Order: sequence, then C-alpha cells, then structure tokens
Amino acid sequence: MSYRVYGDIHSGNCYKIRLLLTLLDIEHDWQPVDILAGETETEAFLAMNPNGKIPVLQLDDGGVLTESNAILNFLADGSAWLPEEPLARARVLQWQFFEQYSHEPYIATARFINRYLGLPDERRAEYEAKQTGGHKALRVMDTQLSQSPFLAGEQPTIADISLYAYTHVAHEGGFDLDDYPALQRWLAAVEAVPGHQTMAQMAAAM
Amino acid sequence: MSYRVYGDIHSGNCYKIRLLLTLLDIEHDWQPVDILAGETETEAFLAMNPNGKIPVLQLDDGGVLTESNAILNFLADGSAWLPEEPLARARVLQWQFFEQYSHEPYIATARFINRYLGLPDERRAEYEAKQTGGHKALRVMDTQLSQSPFLAGEQPTIADISLYAYTHVAHEGGFDLDDYPALQRWLAAVEAVPGHQTMAQMAAAM
Repeated sequence: MSYRVYGDIHSGNCYKIRLLLTLLDIEHDWQPVDILAGETETEAFLAMNPNGKIPVLQLDDGGVLTESNAILNFLADGSAWLPEEPLARARVLQWQFFEQYSHEPYIATARFINRYLGLPDERRAEYEAKQTGGHKALRVMDTQLSQSPFLAGEQPTIADISLYAYTHVAHEGGFDLDDYPALQRWLAAVEAVPGHQTMAQMAAAM
Repeated sequence: MSYRVYGDIHSGNCYKIRLLLTLLDIEHDWQPVDILAGETETEAFLAMNPNGKIPVLQLDDGGVLTESNAILNFLADGSAWLPEEPLARARVLQWQFFEQYSHEPYIATARFINRYLGLPDERRAEYEAKQTGGHKALRVMDTQLSQSPFLAGEQPTIADISLYAYTHVAHEGGFDLDDYPALQRWLAAVEAVPGHQTMAQMAAAM
C-alpha cells in the first residue's frame, strides 16, 4: 500500500499524520495544500472531501479517508501505537474525541487567528474568548498526566500524537504552559520517542 | 459486565448511547444528570470526568469512559454495528469525528439555544450563525447518502447512530431537512432497524 497525503505541515491536524507516518517509517507522497489560497474549496478538492478540509489520505485505489484522527487509527492499526484490547482502544478514542471537541477548537483556532491571520482587531475578542476553553483543556490533560505517563496509560499511543500536535505549538496561540508541570513532562516524553520530529523540524526538512 | 450511564436522554450525545444499548439489548443503569442545574460541575462529577461533560459510562470496576463516540466504539466492538476490517472501521470513525467537529457544534448548539434556553435575544446572533455550518454538515451527509445507503457503506453502523442522534431532532434547532432527500431516506432507514426508538419515544418510556 502506498499513500498520498494532502496537507499543510503547519496545520497540527496534518502534522500528526506525517509524524505517525515518519515514526512507522511508512513511505508516502506529500501534496501541499494552501487553505488560505482557497485550495480546499476547488471543485477537484471538494470531489475528494466534500467537507473541504485537510488532511486527506488517498489510497492506492484512489479511495480517500478524511478526518485526521480516523486516519491515525487506520495507519496505526496493528502497530504499538494502537492497542488491540477494546477498552484500551476506546480510551485512545476518548482522548482523540476530546482533542477535536474540547482542545482543537480553542487552541488551534487561537493559534490560527494569531499566527496565520496576524491577530486582526476584528478577531481579537474571539481570540481572547478562546483562551478560557484552551486552558480548561490543558488542565484536563495535566490532571490525567499527573496520574499516568501518557494520556491513555503507560505507553505512548496515537492519542498522544493527536494531542501533542497542537499542544507543542500552543504558545503560538498565546498559551503559556508554565502552570502545567505534568503536561510539560509529557511533552518531553513524547519528544524523546526515537525518530520524533517537532513541527518546526519537519517543516524545515521538507 | 454491567454498566451505569450518567446522562440526559434529551442530549443527542447521551441518547446515542442508550439507543445502542437498547439495540444490543445490554442491561444498564441510567443515572439522569441535569446540566442546567450544574450537576456536571459538582466535585463528585468532576472526579469522574474532569472535562465536566455527559455522557459518562461507568464500568463494573468503577472505571469510567467518556466521550460519546468512544463509548459507542467500546460497546459496539464485536457486534454488527462496528466492522472489524481496519479501513471500514476507520470509515466509521471518519463520520464520528465529522459529527463532533462539523455537525454537533452547529446543529446541537443551535438546538440547545432554541429548545433549552428559549432563544434569548443575547444569543440570537450566535443561533443564526450556527445555521450556515449546520446546513453545510447536512449537505455533506446528503452527498454521501446519495452514494451509499448508510454513512459508512451498505450496512448501518455506529456512525449512523452518532449522526442520527442530533439530525433527527435538527428541526428543534431551526433546520429544515426538505432540501436533503437522501438524508431523509436515510433517517427512515435508521428508524426501520428493529428495536429502534426515537429520542421522544425513549424519553416517554423512561
């Protein structure tokens, strides 16, 4: 099986796919897509993903899979990054759904407004409002990480990849991580996995 | 294994758990939780789920699982509602992540503002803004459902349960489904599954 990924390495949702592919040493073709240039809204792109979002994973047969965390589950299946046992597997999903509902809409959106849009005045109120929800998510993570080394237990899983993606660049959204000691210890533990690359390292190497 | 579910049957995220438990004929103890009365913010509740959300699934050993779609994956594992094959399984997840990111924040939030809060003036602008995103999600579903009988293929899966939950009460959020013929056909197909109950039927029977 060979894969093509449509994505933007500076998007945490896309970076997480490339990070897992790199850690699993899976060859793939990376097709850069520029959201701000409207490339997710072309007719050809919408034919692939009617929801107009990246990342998109394209398979050998032309079939596609969307939603970053669904893609991670597919790619990690059978590897050490995704346990087999049903409850352990559901625990990974619990953190990935938490990421998409309670973390990404605050931390990734604040970062997008600040880093990609340059914090324009008309979005400053929204940016400020995102800080509360973002810090709540970081606190929830810190609580878990003071009880277990990784989010879903003793070993790193794709739940950690999912949440590492936007958390390690959360400062670009105005989030100071000083108050979250367990979370900081966890960031270092994820970064100590052999073959790990940060978003900046990955972008520089492309 | 016996289960306790903390939830509110009028919340789509909680209803979907009870619907699957009913379809699978799994005994459980249902503990009503009133969000508006602050019952998800008590110390005891936050000890179970630091994110302060329902539903929560409590297991025999006292362990808990949160996030509605993670709970569905756990309960459906090994049943006809969740395929085993990795790509088919990821396709189910794709739709469940779509639900939490692109559907629920629009349709469920509009419904909450309208039905639970009585559409107060100070939230009318937010309510109106939710309509665009909600209709985009309904269009994406309608596109898929014009190509396959159920969201993830030929057979109903927990992806259908996830998206049916808030879609079949979308009118309570101001969404008219007349423009989505494939989606309407699908709603009827989900309701034709033996043992199915709508949210209203389930609430009336409790």
